[in-house]
Amino acid sequence: MRRLFFTCIFLSLGVILFAQQEDSIFIKRISDEVFTHGKAYDNLHELTKKIGGRLSGSPQMVKAEKWGLSTLQQSGADKVWLQECMVPHWVRGGRDKAEASYNTAASKKNLNILALGNSMGTGAKGVRANVVQVNSFDDLEAKKEQLKGKIVFYNYKFNPTFVNTFEAYSDAVRYRGQGPSRAAKYGALAVIVRSMSHSTDNNPHTGATRYDTVYEKIPAIAIGLKDADWLNDQLQKGSVSISLKTNGHFLPDTIGHNVVGELAGTEFPDQYITVGGHLDSWDPAEGANDDGSGIVQTIEILRAFKAIGFKPKHTIRFVLFANEENGLRGGNKYAEEAKAKNEKHIFALESDAGSFTPRGFGFNVSDEQVAKVQKWSSLLEPYGGGSLKKGGDGSDIGPLKTVLGTPTAGLDPDSQRYFDYHHAANDVFENVNKRELELGAINMAALIYLVDKYGL
Amino acid sequence: MRRLFFTCIFLSLGVILFAQQEDSIFIKRISDEVFTHGKAYDNLHELTKKIGGRLSGSPQMVKAEKWGLSTLQQSGADKVWLQECMVPHWVRGGRDKAEASYNTAASKKNLNILALGNSMGTGAKGVRANVVQVNSFDDLEAKKEQLKGKIVFYNYKFNPTFVNTFEAYSDAVRYRGQGPSRAAKYGALAVIVRSMSHSTDNNPHTGATRYDTVYEKIPAIAIGLKDADWLNDQLQKGSVSISLKTNGHFLPDTIGHNVVGELAGTEFPDQYITVGGHLDSWDPAEGANDDGSGIVQTIEILRAFKAIGFKPKHTIRFVLFANEENGLRGGNKYAEEAKAKNEKHIFALESDAGSFTPRGFGFNVSDEQVAKVQKWSSLLEPYGGGSLKKGGDGSDIGPLKTVLGTPTAGLDPDSQRYFDYHHAANDVFENVNKRELELGAINMAALIYLVDKYGL
Repeated sequence: MRRLFFTCIFLSLGVILFAQQEDSIFIKRISDEVFTHGKAYDNLHELTKKIGGRLSGSPQMVKAEKWGLSTLQQSGADKVWLQECMVPHWVRGGRDKAEASYNTAASKKNLNILALGNSMGTGAKGVRANVVQVNSFDDLEAKKEQLKGKIVFYNYKFNPTFVNTFEAYSDAVRYRGQGPSRAAKYGALAVIVRSMSHSTDNNPHTGATRYDTVYEKIPAIAIGLKDADWLNDQLQKGSVSISLKTNGHFLPDTIGHNVVGELAGTEFPDQYITVGGHLDSWDPAEGANDDGSGIVQTIEILRAFKAIGFKPKHTIRFVLFANEENGLRGGNKYAEEAKAKNEKHIFALESDAGSFTPRGFGFNVSDEQVAKVQKWSSLLEPYGGGSLKKGGDGSDIGPLKTVLGTPTAGLDPDSQRYFDYHHAANDVFENVNKRELELGAINMAALIYLVDKYGL
Repeated sequence: MRRLFFTCIFLSLGVILFAQQEDSIFIKRISDEVFTHGKAYDNLHELTKKIGGRLSGSPQMVKAEKWGLSTLQQSGADKVWLQECMVPHWVRGGRDKAEASYNTAASKKNLNILALGNSMGTGAKGVRANVVQVNSFDDLEAKKEQLKGKIVFYNYKFNPTFVNTFEAYSDAVRYRGQGPSRAAKYGALAVIVRSMSHSTDNNPHTGATRYDTVYEKIPAIAIGLKDADWLNDQLQKGSVSISLKTNGHFLPDTIGHNVVGELAGTEFPDQYITVGGHLDSWDPAEGANDDGSGIVQTIEILRAFKAIGFKPKHTIRFVLFANEENGLRGGNKYAEEAKAKNEKHIFALESDAGSFTPRGFGFNVSDEQVAKVQKWSSLLEPYGGGSLKKGGDGSDIGPLKTVLGTPTAGLDPDSQRYFDYHHAANDVFENVNKRELELGAINMAALIYLVDKYGL
């Protein structure tokens, strides 16, 4: 028995070692293909420079859908199609302006601001009022009697002590989301929110706000960090009034599309693995890191799989989702249709955390499944993506998780630079590094290959 | 026995857990201090923007030494001093120019080039000759009969398939180092070397060449990648002649200095831990990543240790080394003096691989020592620096290893972006991210704390 036992061990060890070696060779082929013939960077150049910012409902988003469809086709998809969904159509409506008067109104300063996404404009007359600064929601409540007729300035700081900057974002973003309605409750006329960033520049960072249904939908803007600090300093010295003009408003919902490409599975064509990012972006920039990089990585995985002749067992869907930024209608539509068609989705992966060097993946799966994927860590480690942890996926694939219980995951690039660019005017092609972008695609392709081969 | 055995295990486990917790708390304090009050980024701004490129022997290097001395002092060093050493004094001597004539000399094009460091200029008359391209040293040998009176163009490509870009550098850099003398052997008049980079721009990347003593010291330049590709394309179509003018030459050796700050050890003041980077840089840029970042990280570790009241058991030396780029005289001097004074050096750490997000450290130590440090991986992992591997240290601390056998290590930042900037005009402050720079200092400080506490 002992002898047999040992034989068994060696046999299985042999099989495991052989499989690991085969996997390692496959991943190296993917890596060489992407590093040598990769098109992700050139595709990103097209998307950002020829099309630009792509807010839902904008003409650029329509162009981007066409571009996505033809690029997926050229990259070797077996079939491609548009999946229609209605999307909200918010427009900025013109240039946002804010001018501060201080030193008993003798001095004036233009502030670097952007209206928050989904926010209502000030109207043609604008809003002019004194500013009341609050540093937190507790501070807001303490000052609630002073807010009527005022502009509330939320100066809650992005906490620099979180190593992973997404934790600082989670901590601070409620001021952008809930701040306007919570200030409106006490009669404030408008809201200024300190940008969700710890960048060293003065770019304002926009992003969606969410009015509740009870209080007035007051105008709301994000302010650059230097101007936020300036405003804080001025308010220590005396009163500041701000004259604000924004023009945001909603047009009727319009037609948008998820763009889908498919590589048919050889063994289980009716079982799906989804990989994607979101094609829409905020309007003030090119959406290079959010989420142009996820889009071109998705397309690159398809291109590389075809280039090296990989035939997956399961059908792989490459999805360029619509409307992540201000509605999530694309992700919802994709999951609804999957449910309606009774599709079996075995895994979904998203890249929506920037183009930066990959650290690993976060998984929204069971503990047993995490334990299984962690055995692949040594295969991804040479490519920087070996940190495989529970926690994380992506907004667009969230509905698949909710509706169908699909195991989901998200690429975790290094987070240090993401909020320098997130939703700001400098989220442009020039702030993406070619090799980092490619390395993200390589790690994603490797993970999809492993899930396709071994399941979850 | 079993019971006692278990008790012992639990006791030691308890001690280990307590120690781990204490270490983890200490490292978090360092991290919070650096992320909240860090001066590394501001110091780098001063070094790069007020002083700039700092080649050995240049007036900027003299300024940088003064700046380093006073910054170490202000950051809380118990004592600071300059350690004198003679340094080579190469000067570029003017603007490097190269003009290509092609299409049977009817068309002209200015090439984006930089003379290699330590290279000899063309003289006032310049060099004009037809170009012979070789793609490798094997190719050079095959074409050796064609090289007399020609300009040899080494078009050896930076291999994109290495994930760690330093491997591509190790592979390609011999063409910069040995290329001129190997071409001179066959009568070439000058050498053009494809830049050691896979950047997407056209900046030439300089760096030291090393003439051997036998053959003529012919002029040698680096060419930007786009122009290298252009030259390659033109040479497929017909002959290209290049008119070259460079002015590099050596002035007599001059006095340089390592800048040293010390924090005295409480238990073993005569045992030293060294941490450093190099203060000199190539002349065409600001030396922000090479190695301004190592310099300001070194100073930041001192500042943070003082700020949180850390008193090391061993004496820690913070060393801003002289002349790494074209002589290594600073590193050699430091080791020689340590030997002459019979100093005991227990560890040396260098940061000279850029300001990018840390991945871990490479160690030039015994296998037993590697096994020991790898137990600290979980303490560094939350800060991104958990990958602790055998292999690597830094040029300036290399002589300590050679002369005294000191265990050495180097910070391993993510390597993807390093060779976009290395020795090129875009190695400027703007290409350093504040938080990545700080995270490097945090990981280095943590490692020094652990070595100081537990030894190696």
